[in-house]
Amino acid sequence: MGSNIELLHGDIVYSESGDSLTVRENAILAVEDGKVRDIYAPDALPEDLRPLPVTDYGRSLIIPAFTDMHVHAPQYEERGIRMDLLLSDWLNQCTFPEEAKFADPDYARLVYRQFAQDLVRQGTLHAVVFATLHAGATDILMDLLEEQGIDAFVGKVNMDIHSPDFLCETAEESLRGTEAWLERHSGTESRVRPILTPRFAPTCSFPLLQGLGALAKKYHTGVQTHLVESKWEAAESVSMYPECGSDAGIYERAGLLGEGPSIFAHVIFPTAEDLRIMKKYGSFAVHCPDATTNIIAGIAPVAAEQAEGIRVALGSDVGAGHSLAVYRQAARAVQLSKLKEFYEPAESGTISFADAFYMATKEGGSLFGKTGSFEKGYDFDALVITGQEDAGVPLDAAGRLERFCYTGDDRDIAARYMRGKKM
Amino acid sequence: MGSNIELLHGDIVYSESGDSLTVRENAILAVEDGKVRDIYAPDALPEDLRPLPVTDYGRSLIIPAFTDMHVHAPQYEERGIRMDLLLSDWLNQCTFPEEAKFADPDYARLVYRQFAQDLVRQGTLHAVVFATLHAGATDILMDLLEEQGIDAFVGKVNMDIHSPDFLCETAEESLRGTEAWLERHSGTESRVRPILTPRFAPTCSFPLLQGLGALAKKYHTGVQTHLVESKWEAAESVSMYPECGSDAGIYERAGLLGEGPSIFAHVIFPTAEDLRIMKKYGSFAVHCPDATTNIIAGIAPVAAEQAEGIRVALGSDVGAGHSLAVYRQAARAVQLSKLKEFYEPAESGTISFADAFYMATKEGGSLFGKTGSFEKGYDFDALVITGQEDAGVPLDAAGRLERFCYTGDDRDIAARYMRGKKM
Repeated sequence: MGSNIELLHGDIVYSESGDSLTVRENAILAVEDGKVRDIYAPDALPEDLRPLPVTDYGRSLIIPAFTDMHVHAPQYEERGIRMDLLLSDWLNQCTFPEEAKFADPDYARLVYRQFAQDLVRQGTLHAVVFATLHAGATDILMDLLEEQGIDAFVGKVNMDIHSPDFLCETAEESLRGTEAWLERHSGTESRVRPILTPRFAPTCSFPLLQGLGALAKKYHTGVQTHLVESKWEAAESVSMYPECGSDAGIYERAGLLGEGPSIFAHVIFPTAEDLRIMKKYGSFAVHCPDATTNIIAGIAPVAAEQAEGIRVALGSDVGAGHSLAVYRQAARAVQLSKLKEFYEPAESGTISFADAFYMATKEGGSLFGKTGSFEKGYDFDALVITGQEDAGVPLDAAGRLERFCYTGDDRDIAARYMRGKKM
Repeated sequence: MGSNIELLHGDIVYSESGDSLTVRENAILAVEDGKVRDIYAPDALPEDLRPLPVTDYGRSLIIPAFTDMHVHAPQYEERGIRMDLLLSDWLNQCTFPEEAKFADPDYARLVYRQFAQDLVRQGTLHAVVFATLHAGATDILMDLLEEQGIDAFVGKVNMDIHSPDFLCETAEESLRGTEAWLERHSGTESRVRPILTPRFAPTCSFPLLQGLGALAKKYHTGVQTHLVESKWEAAESVSMYPECGSDAGIYERAGLLGEGPSIFAHVIFPTAEDLRIMKKYGSFAVHCPDATTNIIAGIAPVAAEQAEGIRVALGSDVGAGHSLAVYRQAARAVQLSKLKEFYEPAESGTISFADAFYMATKEGGSLFGKTGSFEKGYDFDALVITGQEDAGVPLDAAGRLERFCYTGDDRDIAARYMRGKKM
């Protein structure tokens, strides 16, 4: 039996690095067994491909699908409301009461179904997701994401101190529930995998964090959390755990790093020690520009983190961020880098659009394997983007991609492919 | 003959001031001869209205239409591309060459038609618009806006120094062309009116500005320009015209203020003298958050300007801004006020959503008469906004409005009314 080959024609744009976009206008991409075989000019197809039919997307863009590296599914109903609050008020008045509703599986199903559908609608085919502390609702979310056919890491949240009565577990309950949940999801072939998810240091006792560290080792599981996301959180974490020396040091000392991927949201006020630890473990910093602007004050030093060798990817951070569109976060990352440069001029400078698109695709995608680019052998996880031009005024492929990220929407996503299969 | 009355039912939201939204859920708004007569609970309609049919918008929002106080129509094709440049590069590499194309009436018609249609599509029914220095193309733009049935001030741009050869006039040409253009548009009943539009001080000689001052007096015409939009522009203006003492002082000394409205875009780095002059003439400062973030560095001190008694409205500033959606600028104004507060804490604090919506509707609308609110006697210039809720999770009217401003789009604008007439 021969391999399964499909040919797609369009204007192909992807990233190999953050330095520049790779643009192949009027080209044919060959997908073989779900992976990119190569990209050809239409008159330079190899012999064996010439007889095959071509799916012709004309001048539409074919680009890698997006990766959302930080999103809170149970906050989906909070998006775009009460956005003039600041972090602590927003957590206490909006988020904690909303998350408490996920004790009810029916409510969880209702919200999570819409969330999972809208994630795909916005072209996000890989995601790293916070659920709530409710293991049952977390299972529902994982099932719904699996139904959508996307790749995800999903976390049952852990929080045992400094949390409201209605949204809190004891360390023992939390660890027992987490282990049972890990058991249920271990040894499966599912592309929706569990990840340990202490909310952040201020709501986690050290026994809880150490217990999670033991689970990380036992189940070879990674960790996601929020790191130095606000001046308050950074100061609080270090004052609770002075012996750890830094916010990242808390997770290292608890044994949570190095057993799987480590994904730190925000990283707005990192110390040199935070960066050293992140680099040591190949951690991701997740830049969430809209969330940063809405609820959390400050702008992550993205270019400086990159210069230190830290991998920086993008997150929607719904509900602190208001939109699931990761492509819009690429635009917003460029915008915020201008303001960062204005207020805190640094050698590392601003972020180019090419770099922002790279963060939204290949950099984030690297967590999930070979996805987020169209280099040979990469999974063909892709979107077809139409429009972006006005009648009579042509725009090159790179321009259309940039305009899509700034002003496009889900109407412009004409097709989605996951490992070569049209969704 | 009796008056023309129409009844509309829905969830009605508007601003009387920037302090809070006025919300009337499940209410009936009576429009009489194109103006708001009053708003009633369904069971409290006065006798004379009870027999009339009601247009039922259910739980949709009925809100005032938006006013865009600063937008460059000839930069429409630039939106969302090359957004990682900064102001001077963007002007020289992108904007000036693009504006030069408007010497060709066919190109002007092509772009301006799309611009005018998209403006209305985004719910902007009042606008203050820059054209280019080409009077012919400016006439085409004015005709197309009039065809759309909206209210606008439109300016033929003046620039005679420090401008590229391909986009420059002599002061004499510029004044002669401007006067002929004002003549063509004077004495008409059109709701699309001319406004004097020196680009900004760095591209205008004093003889040109004084000549425009004389035209302002002769034709009772207002003025729009850019004011202290960047540190460079602020410093350049004052160094070119040290005797004027401030950027706003240049226009005052040239006799351009007080003959009609004065509209200053950006006002990011105002001196006390700028603010004093603006207050004296009742000038508008136009806050353009996306443009500020994209191309121009810095965040306007909106709350501080308001505290000084300056009227601050919102502008899309396409093409430095990437989207015509003024409602999105309302969201962005809240966002940027958080960053402003983070970097430059001030007593005036952040902007509430209610205030941002007020700026986008009633404050900007006040330039055009009684529009932008639903207080009695206001023109019924309105939008009907659908959606914003997910299945099974209800959201109050204020929440739906805020979510629309953050994440909605033109699909959600189900109807547009101009002076009571459905468009």
